[in-house]
Amino acid sequence: MRVGVLTGGGDCPGLNAAIRAIVRKGVQECGFEFVGVRDGWRGALEGAIVPLDIPAVRGILPRGGTILGSSRTNPLKSEDGVARVRETLAAYEVDALIAIGGEDTLGVAAALADEGIGVVGVPKTIDNDVTGTDYTFGFDTAVNIATEAIDRLHTTAESHTRTLVVEVMGRHAGWIALHSGIAGGANVILIPEQPFDLDQVCEWVRDRFKIRYAPIVVVAEGAVPKAGQMVVKDSSLDEFGHVRLSGIGEWLAREIADRTGKEARTTVLGHIQRGGTPSAFDRWLATRFGLRAVDAVYERDFGTMVALRGADVVRVPLSEVTGGTKGVDPALYAEFGVFFG
Amino acid sequence: MRVGVLTGGGDCPGLNAAIRAIVRKGVQECGFEFVGVRDGWRGALEGAIVPLDIPAVRGILPRGGTILGSSRTNPLKSEDGVARVRETLAAYEVDALIAIGGEDTLGVAAALADEGIGVVGVPKTIDNDVTGTDYTFGFDTAVNIATEAIDRLHTTAESHTRTLVVEVMGRHAGWIALHSGIAGGANVILIPEQPFDLDQVCEWVRDRFKIRYAPIVVVAEGAVPKAGQMVVKDSSLDEFGHVRLSGIGEWLAREIADRTGKEARTTVLGHIQRGGTPSAFDRWLATRFGLRAVDAVYERDFGTMVALRGADVVRVPLSEVTGGTKGVDPALYAEFGVFFG
Amino acid sequence: MRVGVLTGGGDCPGLNAAIRAIVRKGVQECGFEFVGVRDGWRGALEGAIVPLDIPAVRGILPRGGTILGSSRTNPLKSEDGVARVRETLAAYEVDALIAIGGEDTLGVAAALADEGIGVVGVPKTIDNDVTGTDYTFGFDTAVNIATEAIDRLHTTAESHTRTLVVEVMGRHAGWIALHSGIAGGANVILIPEQPFDLDQVCEWVRDRFKIRYAPIVVVAEGAVPKAGQMVVKDSSLDEFGHVRLSGIGEWLAREIADRTGKEARTTVLGHIQRGGTPSAFDRWLATRFGLRAVDAVYERDFGTMVALRGADVVRVPLSEVTGGTKGVDPALYAEFGVFFG
Amino acid sequence: MRVGVLTGGGDCPGLNAAIRAIVRKGVQECGFEFVGVRDGWRGALEGAIVPLDIPAVRGILPRGGTILGSSRTNPLKSEDGVARVRETLAAYEVDALIAIGGEDTLGVAAALADEGIGVVGVPKTIDNDVTGTDYTFGFDTAVNIATEAIDRLHTTAESHTRTLVVEVMGRHAGWIALHSGIAGGANVILIPEQPFDLDQVCEWVRDRFKIRYAPIVVVAEGAVPKAGQMVVKDSSLDEFGHVRLSGIGEWLAREIADRTGKEARTTVLGHIQRGGTPSAFDRWLATRFGLRAVDAVYERDFGTMVALRGADVVRVPLSEVTGGTKGVDPALYAEFGVFFG
Repeated sequence: MRVGVLTGGGDCPGLNAAIRAIVRKGVQECGFEFVGVRDGWRGALEGAIVPLDIPAVRGILPRGGTILGSSRTNPLKSEDGVARVRETLAAYEVDALIAIGGEDTLGVAAALADEGIGVVGVPKTIDNDVTGTDYTFGFDTAVNIATEAIDRLHTTAESHTRTLVVEVMGRHAGWIALHSGIAGGANVILIPEQPFDLDQVCEWVRDRFKIRYAPIVVVAEGAVPKAGQMVVKDSSLDEFGHVRLSGIGEWLAREIADRTGKEARTTVLGHIQRGGTPSAFDRWLATRFGLRAVDAVYERDFGTMVALRGADVVRVPLSEVTGGTKGVDPALYAEFGVFFG
Repeated sequence: MRVGVLTGGGDCPGLNAAIRAIVRKGVQECGFEFVGVRDGWRGALEGAIVPLDIPAVRGILPRGGTILGSSRTNPLKSEDGVARVRETLAAYEVDALIAIGGEDTLGVAAALADEGIGVVGVPKTIDNDVTGTDYTFGFDTAVNIATEAIDRLHTTAESHTRTLVVEVMGRHAGWIALHSGIAGGANVILIPEQPFDLDQVCEWVRDRFKIRYAPIVVVAEGAVPKAGQMVVKDSSLDEFGHVRLSGIGEWLAREIADRTGKEARTTVLGHIQRGGTPSAFDRWLATRFGLRAVDAVYERDFGTMVALRGADVVRVPLSEVTGGTKGVDPALYAEFGVFFG
Repeated sequence: MRVGVLTGGGDCPGLNAAIRAIVRKGVQECGFEFVGVRDGWRGALEGAIVPLDIPAVRGILPRGGTILGSSRTNPLKSEDGVARVRETLAAYEVDALIAIGGEDTLGVAAALADEGIGVVGVPKTIDNDVTGTDYTFGFDTAVNIATEAIDRLHTTAESHTRTLVVEVMGRHAGWIALHSGIAGGANVILIPEQPFDLDQVCEWVRDRFKIRYAPIVVVAEGAVPKAGQMVVKDSSLDEFGHVRLSGIGEWLAREIADRTGKEARTTVLGHIQRGGTPSAFDRWLATRFGLRAVDAVYERDFGTMVALRGADVVRVPLSEVTGGTKGVDPALYAEFGVFFG
Repeated sequence: MRVGVLTGGGDCPGLNAAIRAIVRKGVQECGFEFVGVRDGWRGALEGAIVPLDIPAVRGILPRGGTILGSSRTNPLKSEDGVARVRETLAAYEVDALIAIGGEDTLGVAAALADEGIGVVGVPKTIDNDVTGTDYTFGFDTAVNIATEAIDRLHTTAESHTRTLVVEVMGRHAGWIALHSGIAGGANVILIPEQPFDLDQVCEWVRDRFKIRYAPIVVVAEGAVPKAGQMVVKDSSLDEFGHVRLSGIGEWLAREIADRTGKEARTTVLGHIQRGGTPSAFDRWLATRFGLRAVDAVYERDFGTMVALRGADVVRVPLSEVTGGTKGVDPALYAEFGVFFG
């Protein structure tokens, strides 16, 4: 059996660990041959297929990124996309595909499975917003990086009268902000799932200043204030008249400074959250996902995805992940209100 | 309501995070008063009770260890132990206890609950061997530390012809060895649950040398060879005739060196695995456990323990944890055989 | 002898290590008594004096920030400043002062010494721009943090066609940018000492893209383009007409994106560079500085500052540091041109 | 000009950074061609020469180990060694050699230079015991790793009545022990340069216990007790009658436990101190050394070694390093006595 492996979407710590586990188990225990599909679905469309054997995966376990490259190309967006994927697979005699990715990549996998192509999915995303699995790999690493940054801010915050705003990743889901904010002891945490009230934020900030310790505000990049609180000013237009908003973190720092009369500074963690060596948990999870994905291929149980449920890795239908992202439950968010202010 | 908090057993990253969450929520949302019981059950026996309020828990979230101290004292081992605990609680007007600990501490908690004392348990242990919960806090930190050590050994291993043995914690359960060994890309992982065959270990080591790369062997401190393979030599007696075995790691390195004819070195991580700042996951889990333990006290749902199930924190009877430690399932261990050698 | 200790200016990893060494040696070996002056020179002006003994310095070695607080208050800026400092010292019977700080704090120390006050200086700053000493503590920690961030960006950069800009600290001196940029393998490094040519920067960026690997640009916050290259647009005015420039990092990313036609993203490390536990080097240096500052006081060699020269800690006149900041030598910067592009 | 590069002795973080800098500068600025000599002087003896160009050094900056391999082979130990090195260089048309290594490797380099072979030396060793240079790369990384381990032990030490012994590297010189012990706040530091008095050590340990905090003892692997204090017992003979001493750390823990009556535990850091990614300082230093070594070759200033003096990289005669290792000065060691006990 010849099996293709591809990684799609944003890069994410743990991708290489998953690829390694797939190849090691597939070759050593199942007698599979593997090929790598370059740059996500783009390689499947364009026939960019590379050899993938055990020597190719040596030493990659602790490395971030993906040796196969990635892209956001979506074959469903071109009319003949599915046909071209099918042609590539036929041309390279690929019997089955293991697709590692987030919601988009797995959505394509689900559609291809519906078309009869033998696909097994492996969920990954630093945002942790894939439905059907307790956690995705990449997330734990991102949270650790953000938490360490918040830790560092505490010591510097202790000796100054200023608000420190940390902008973390999370366009649609606030998991990184919530986990790192709680782990880091933030005084305010703002997530996309719940539009925030700028007045409330400033009240928390003022409360914090009263007990002489600079407030730390963690804000997900996708968080937004309540309707009407963010005014798009002329200043956010560039010389061509295009809207050119800075990130929410910088905006928030300005507003807090204006309203509280105290200095505010922003740290934008940006891509350092998705880079570097994966945490032990992410390597463990990625490895287990990889091993179990091979089982699914071996049993020809296509159209499925591996998923974490408690301490177990199980198999769920790929269709489970296509119903939208998994956000932070308001009840969970509310539990942590005791730490705000 | 006045609530006592105690931490028992070996220290563990996340204890302070749990204490902080308990006090913050108990005081701010439930109107509780708290006292700290010093040094685990010893403080309950001897009346070592200290004040515990919000200022006392400021800044402790990222710190390892426990501000309340710990001990392995077991009140059930003295005849009047339960009576003395009851007296202490009465003397200080303590209405309920939150006991944070591993199997032993929680076993005492279960027994006291049976005697009608209002106790809620919070599981912790770096060994991850408490039944009834998917994970305990402290474990993730320990695994990260061990994994980072293994990572470092890889680069040095690449340029020498020698076996590197890493001894990690785990007297009864191999969770740390298994997780860190898999995350670190070890070539052999030995756990207490499964007596190892020294010949097999040496075969894996020799196989590894063939592809020119020094083997890394991760061994839990409680791992043992198959019956008959470890001979207690005279050399392990000290000048008083007492048996004075070095750890299993050192023993193993000697045996491997003798049998393969190639140098072998040991690293014993020891207590660095249970010290230092907790990982983001452990802080998150400890915080959630703390918050939910307060809920249980508030609802007077005594005799219970908080536990992780998937991404949820639930409540289970304390009696669930008293049936022995949770070991690594042989089937799970077997899954990783593909990486050995 | 009663000795006051104060920390001034921005906080900096290693301050607590220095304070601890001063108190340990002063009390144990010289029989000194110590008091802490709160919040830098402000405490000296306002008589904010606190006890400072061995128990007060236990456990602070690895902690960032300063237990004495800090400020940028300059007593030389008020007419009666020197007199008030003198009064405070007299009122609390303080015979000598150890002032730990950067250029400003040490400048005040030099002036006070000229007025006959017994002062010894200890240089610190994460920017490493104090003259008279090879290195200041705080710098090594900042460089390690920035380097780790750049490391993380590399893995994510490998799989995308975008420029990554990292803005690091350094208003007047480019030491952090240069050291972290070289240690992190950046493709472009921009420092305040040398106005950059945006066209040259974009050329390096384009060259880098040709060998298929996203460029990483490290820019000190104080770096500026050559005259005429930065146009203050209307868009940088806020609703009150005030200029509200984002940092240089964000500006640079926009310009590079516009000119190269490829996406560019910014990471602003901000205060995480000055927070958290000091590196081993900074703890070592701060400890040695502290020990030697006590020697200087003991020998009543006032008006001096401790300084690193090679592997030795020596004593130099405080006047040496008042001649301006120590910038990156153009010849040193030029040496690294081989890594650009 | 064709230049060979070799790395000899124990591996060390920063070797790859040096190789990269050498190749980048040599090719881009001097028009050199490079070849790699495999496994230190062994490759020079046996003609194991590999291509070494810019693509070969991409991405190696942050990686531990050495892409060229290493060995402890010494060509001076075989009669025709020098002749064979000369033959290899002639056969591959190598005009000059850059030898990166510690005392042994550089000693060979000095001897070859005396024979008229064009050699430039670059000092490296985690032990920091090369004379002629303030610091060698590799050392800072090792110290950071050991310090972090000691940090972790503090939190666990706080809650137990036991002595924690940490054995760090350093056969002949105590630099790692001294720097990490001071940076980590150890209570006792033992170095090879100064035989220790076991009674004094135990007194310090007992003093420490009095103020309720477990003592941490850092011991260099080469440290030894005063004459007569270490008795080689029968128990240290193996079944063949060979002496089989455990490390000094384990021995010390046993003795301290016996004499103080309190438990003692050992952590042996071993090879994790020389593995993994180099610290920012080591990458900076290795890079600068590499750049300057190329200058020396370009100027045909053979028989020299690059060296750090203060913040400058200078050139010194290779003969300077052959006078023995650089140990810790007793006066420097004595300075830190204030922290013992």
